[in-house]
Amino acid sequence: MKLYTSFGMNPRLVRMFLIEKKIELKQVQIDLLAGENRQPAFLKLNPTGQTPVLELDNGKYLSETAAICEYLEERYPTPALIGSTAEERAEARMWLRRVELNICLPMVHAFYYKEGYELFSSRVYCIPEAAEGLKEKARRALSWLNDLMPEGQWLCGQRFTISDICLFTYLDLLRNGGQPIPENLHNVQSWFDRVAARPSAEASLFPEQPMGLRG
Amino acid sequence: MKLYTSFGMNPRLVRMFLIEKKIELKQVQIDLLAGENRQPAFLKLNPTGQTPVLELDNGKYLSETAAICEYLEERYPTPALIGSTAEERAEARMWLRRVELNICLPMVHAFYYKEGYELFSSRVYCIPEAAEGLKEKARRALSWLNDLMPEGQWLCGQRFTISDICLFTYLDLLRNGGQPIPENLHNVQSWFDRVAARPSAEASLFPEQPMGLRG
Repeated sequence: MKLYTSFGMNPRLVRMFLIEKKIELKQVQIDLLAGENRQPAFLKLNPTGQTPVLELDNGKYLSETAAICEYLEERYPTPALIGSTAEERAEARMWLRRVELNICLPMVHAFYYKEGYELFSSRVYCIPEAAEGLKEKARRALSWLNDLMPEGQWLCGQRFTISDICLFTYLDLLRNGGQPIPENLHNVQSWFDRVAARPSAEASLFPEQPMGLRG
Repeated sequence: MKLYTSFGMNPRLVRMFLIEKKIELKQVQIDLLAGENRQPAFLKLNPTGQTPVLELDNGKYLSETAAICEYLEERYPTPALIGSTAEERAEARMWLRRVELNICLPMVHAFYYKEGYELFSSRVYCIPEAAEGLKEKARRALSWLNDLMPEGQWLCGQRFTISDICLFTYLDLLRNGGQPIPENLHNVQSWFDRVAARPSAEASLFPEQPMGLRG
């Protein structure tokens, strides 16, 4: 297998997932800022033009971060970052979707449409008039999560999972991109600090960090 | 196990998934229009207030449609609607995310913010100024998909999967909700007609169809 990776929250999510599982893969770095992922050679690997992409041993190319992590978990089951039973996997998938759909995606779309507009307007369809509303939508969902979070635990209780990694990589990048963690969300901040203290957090950063962003 | 279900594309997605797999589950109908899913009794099952919810045999409640379908596939592996190998599952998960994130979610959000605004503005955070942009974003992604679709196949080639069911349930409801399938997208329309011809398409409809919507 071979991982095509780059700067960004989703590529970092997969790198952090690999480090937590102690999987070593050959990695190819794609120059996102130069638009290498929008060139014909890369579009053959993934027609959405998004990173990361995992080249499988059968020669096929797998994209979409959650699908890549599920595949890696099936190939390398321990330590489990999704789950070791159907019920554990169900819980982790539920929380991954809750944080990704309600918090992470509105946040990154708002970034594309405002702070990152100059770079992204030629790459993705942008809706600038939606930016402030999307930020507010994400803040409300993060506040909802803050009230649900039990003290000192992960999103799936005692288990550190892909859902924690996902939310962390988005919050860590976008807090320097116009969307800081609101000061009154103490549970989220405490959870964030505990994820940030894991060695995989620093070790998963891309060699280059453009515009002061962490990805 | 017991399924809490209602009108809507995601509840129908799970019902269609069950019918295709010939799984019979006890079902409890939630009155979405009356807001039963936003009442305290239901919020104990799912704090997002969304349907469907699957009650597991261990007494826990599982929400998020994709997580529910993954769990059902693990419990009832055949016929496979996600996949019977890690590679097949990876492909179906990749396509599910591509259609859901790039097409289905912008479509349904646009519906919440415009045609469905009167009903949804008190239930979800709405961004009315984003509605037209979201529709255009979804149309562009649907056109992208149209150009990639091989004639006479499903999203995962010869395999009919959860990704087909997901896209179908969203397009079928929202085509009567202000977002018809664009006339020039012949591959998408041909694919849609083939899904609609499956017995599970009609059989999965909720007993009541409000406002002429199919869900």
